[in-house]
Amino acid sequence: MDQIFSKLTFRTNGEGFIDITHDLNLFIKKNNFHSGIFNLTSLHTSCSLTINENADPNVLRDLKKYMQSIVPYDSYFTLSKNREEISYKHYQEGSDDMPAHIKTSLTNTALSLSFQDGKILLGTWRAIYLWEHRIDQKERIVNVHIIGEKKQNKYNEIK
Amino acid sequence: MDQIFSKLTFRTNGEGFIDITHDLNLFIKKNNFHSGIFNLTSLHTSCSLTINENADPNVLRDLKKYMQSIVPYDSYFTLSKNREEISYKHYQEGSDDMPAHIKTSLTNTALSLSFQDGKILLGTWRAIYLWEHRIDQKERIVNVHIIGEKKQNKYNEIK
Amino acid sequence: MDQIFSKLTFRTNGEGFIDITHDLNLFIKKNNFHSGIFNLTSLHTSCSLTINENADPNVLRDLKKYMQSIVPYDSYFTLSKNREEISYKHYQEGSDDMPAHIKTSLTNTALSLSFQDGKILLGTWRAIYLWEHRIDQKERIVNVHIIGEKKQNKYNEIK
Repeated sequence: MDQIFSKLTFRTNGEGFIDITHDLNLFIKKNNFHSGIFNLTSLHTSCSLTINENADPNVLRDLKKYMQSIVPYDSYFTLSKNREEISYKHYQEGSDDMPAHIKTSLTNTALSLSFQDGKILLGTWRAIYLWEHRIDQKERIVNVHIIGEKKQNKYNEIK
Repeated sequence: MDQIFSKLTFRTNGEGFIDITHDLNLFIKKNNFHSGIFNLTSLHTSCSLTINENADPNVLRDLKKYMQSIVPYDSYFTLSKNREEISYKHYQEGSDDMPAHIKTSLTNTALSLSFQDGKILLGTWRAIYLWEHRIDQKERIVNVHIIGEKKQNKYNEIK
Repeated sequence: MDQIFSKLTFRTNGEGFIDITHDLNLFIKKNNFHSGIFNLTSLHTSCSLTINENADPNVLRDLKKYMQSIVPYDSYFTLSKNREEISYKHYQEGSDDMPAHIKTSLTNTALSLSFQDGKILLGTWRAIYLWEHRIDQKERIVNVHIIGEKKQNKYNEIK
């Protein structure tokens, strides 16, 4: 069992999704790993790592719209009887910053995935996305870490 | 340190929860693992893997009701000042499909659990559930992957 | 590759966040691990493990307020057209108990983190928090589990 650490950098383009699946599978291949655990850690508190459908682009569009709708900029209304309006106390870094922290909390900044035969096990029509929650372009770093086997046929396959 | 990969298939019965804890612990036992990391990956974008209480069935009932209430079928209202109604652009696969993708994003499709003495470390009154978000019956595949020790007493226990 | 299991106990003080980053890094150091995977499992269904900003305390304040606002005590209103009021069926353990289960489901009870040079890879201004969702003081147990290397220079660093 070997391990390897590195960092991948992505340039985001405002709120939305960047498909990072290919870069991750390339990292496995380049480092000659066959099978193991692939740990991803976003080093930020205003973007997420998420897995979702990569077939119809409207899925990502609806997903972004939903998150913007339940975590609005500036203020939001509670779901309690009095329907109170709440403003963010942390607003100094922009009206999209505190909502971005909340969106991050409702999703994930770390993913622990399994890979086999040099490829992350995902299923059909699924991709791994870096989900940017800030309006501005950002440079985002994802820490990549593998623990696994470098040589083939050293693990047991159950049919 | 050894590893093993396999797939478990579950038949869901509409929106709701299937307790998969026993099947997962059985997989550990059958493959003679003692302790390690157990990585679960649902290969779908409209069901989740979640851990919650297994004592009072009303907990699961309330949980499902809550998720249905904040991610309604067909359309939803935003929490912003203007309380806008938003319809899903991705509606072609049924009125429950896009809500299922959103519910999946708000929870998890991958879990990395620890197990010791042949059993997943969970705590009292806790179970691992496959959470189906679609209305129809579905066949769901969970990829199971263990990295761990097969023989006893090879790890260090801290008292 | 070695592994180690233990439990850390934390005393919470009502709804809010306890920074557990230092305790986790100390556990790595004390057990002489250098690099690997650090799996955390909260053994409870009414508190979470989350990573967020540790710079401005208002971030945590806003985060807690948001979660209380979308998962209110006693009852909540749906986001659907009819804006129905829903009461929890599971209310016997207190008006904060079922909301706590829901808040737990919307976040995480297990985290799989990477560490290198004896320290969890987090990024700047980030901390790992135990997020208590109950009003009362509670004793919370986090299962800690490492798979990794004890000696230095046994893994490959990519520049």
